[in-house]
Amino acid sequence: MADRARLSLNQMTTANWSAAQAIEGCVRHGIGAIALWRHKIQEAGLNACVQQVRDAGVHVSSVCRGGMFPAATEQERRKSIEDNFRAADEAAALAADSLVLVAGGCAGLSIEDARKMVADGVAALVPYARERGVRIGLEPLHPMYAADRSVLNTIGQALELASHYDLREVGVILDTFHIWWDPQVAALIARAAGRIFGFHVSDWLVPLPDVLLGRGLMGDGVIDNRKLRVMVEEAGYSGPIEVEIFNRALWDADPDTALTQVIERFEKFV
Amino acid sequence: MADRARLSLNQMTTANWSAAQAIEGCVRHGIGAIALWRHKIQEAGLNACVQQVRDAGVHVSSVCRGGMFPAATEQERRKSIEDNFRAADEAAALAADSLVLVAGGCAGLSIEDARKMVADGVAALVPYARERGVRIGLEPLHPMYAADRSVLNTIGQALELASHYDLREVGVILDTFHIWWDPQVAALIARAAGRIFGFHVSDWLVPLPDVLLGRGLMGDGVIDNRKLRVMVEEAGYSGPIEVEIFNRALWDADPDTALTQVIERFEKFV
Repeated sequence: MADRARLSLNQMTTANWSAAQAIEGCVRHGIGAIALWRHKIQEAGLNACVQQVRDAGVHVSSVCRGGMFPAATEQERRKSIEDNFRAADEAAALAADSLVLVAGGCAGLSIEDARKMVADGVAALVPYARERGVRIGLEPLHPMYAADRSVLNTIGQALELASHYDLREVGVILDTFHIWWDPQVAALIARAAGRIFGFHVSDWLVPLPDVLLGRGLMGDGVIDNRKLRVMVEEAGYSGPIEVEIFNRALWDADPDTALTQVIERFEKFV
Repeated sequence: MADRARLSLNQMTTANWSAAQAIEGCVRHGIGAIALWRHKIQEAGLNACVQQVRDAGVHVSSVCRGGMFPAATEQERRKSIEDNFRAADEAAALAADSLVLVAGGCAGLSIEDARKMVADGVAALVPYARERGVRIGLEPLHPMYAADRSVLNTIGQALELASHYDLREVGVILDTFHIWWDPQVAALIARAAGRIFGFHVSDWLVPLPDVLLGRGLMGDGVIDNRKLRVMVEEAGYSGPIEVEIFNRALWDADPDTALTQVIERFEKFV
């Protein structure tokens, strides 16, 4: 069983809550860590968020998300990199374990060109993040998001990209929803040892209700979250375990009820 | 540009047509090959289908589909293998280039166990198919189908499974919808040389309208079908190119209009 103290609330699980509400929710439910999303940070104001997590004594497991590098024009690519610098500033101010990068989709380009732009974007961001003590977590997304969200689709691909950098600076974020199907998953998690900056859990429902908003609570689908959690631990990762569930029905429910369920399922299935 | 003579109609593209109607449609539109689905063959009767393709002078590029091996009980697994024997009989009677296998999903089991059952199922089928001169084409399906349709999800995985057999007996079916996202796609297609038994084209729409019925006509999405077709040719495959489009809107349209579009898009984008 996973140590309950490692549970972190990825705030997209309670998408209708503001940052302040989600932080208060963590305190109310005895959850020690939170992953904050940038649109929620901006809504609240960065300084207010910094103060709120400090006052609440809640640890920030990650800031979601930088990335989104591929773009059709040089100007857009430059703008995206500037935006990533702001994301790194936010991660630094919040003392987050890492800034999570979602690569971005094809953006009207060939997937090969989009992948090169991701590599270039990471190269531009790393020195800036390094100076601010921010670690970059590359999150491979499920191949069904390759067209529109992330051309980084496997652990192998993320590790290859990370390998160009110091392992204290660039690592990978392993999310069971994105990686569970990979025929090489055990070998790749083992190979990621030393580079695992984050671990996310949820479940894959059958049939999948929606490409984006169809994730399930752990135990409602086919993913063996416990087995993957043990693999990730054996590869040396002992940090926060984020519960990140994009699910319309869960969002429509009372967030406190959702959090109670999250905790139950975490204890039972992670 | 792909040779127009290589176009084969996978009959799921005109799902509302019976086998006889699809064969007649091929003749009317000057399409020399067809991929027949088993539920359509059974609807028409195998002997009638054999007669129809013979009379029409249409070549059968594949019979779709065998596989679906994972099951919770020994009895169900045995039944599935028996059903695959019938599929091989049909492929033999129709002189199809190959019997396409779709592995089957997790079936309530762990994905690792389901994958073992697929390997066992193929092992049981190969000797039976060999005696009837039927080639087995393993079709890796996109990872988004891992839970409910196919635990065989990458070219690499399909090649590993095929490697246990003679390359005249077991090969792979490459469908651009399923493989386009793979970071290793070029290397894997090259590695598949000699084992490519079929090639399918369609497109990935953005956003994806539906997990199952959301494929697009070539040119409507992000897949570079031409580039992949050239890779497959360079790996030595010069056989039929099946157009296989599961799309609700296309099915609701007049099938003759759909076929005219398929031919135009094939000439323009494949």
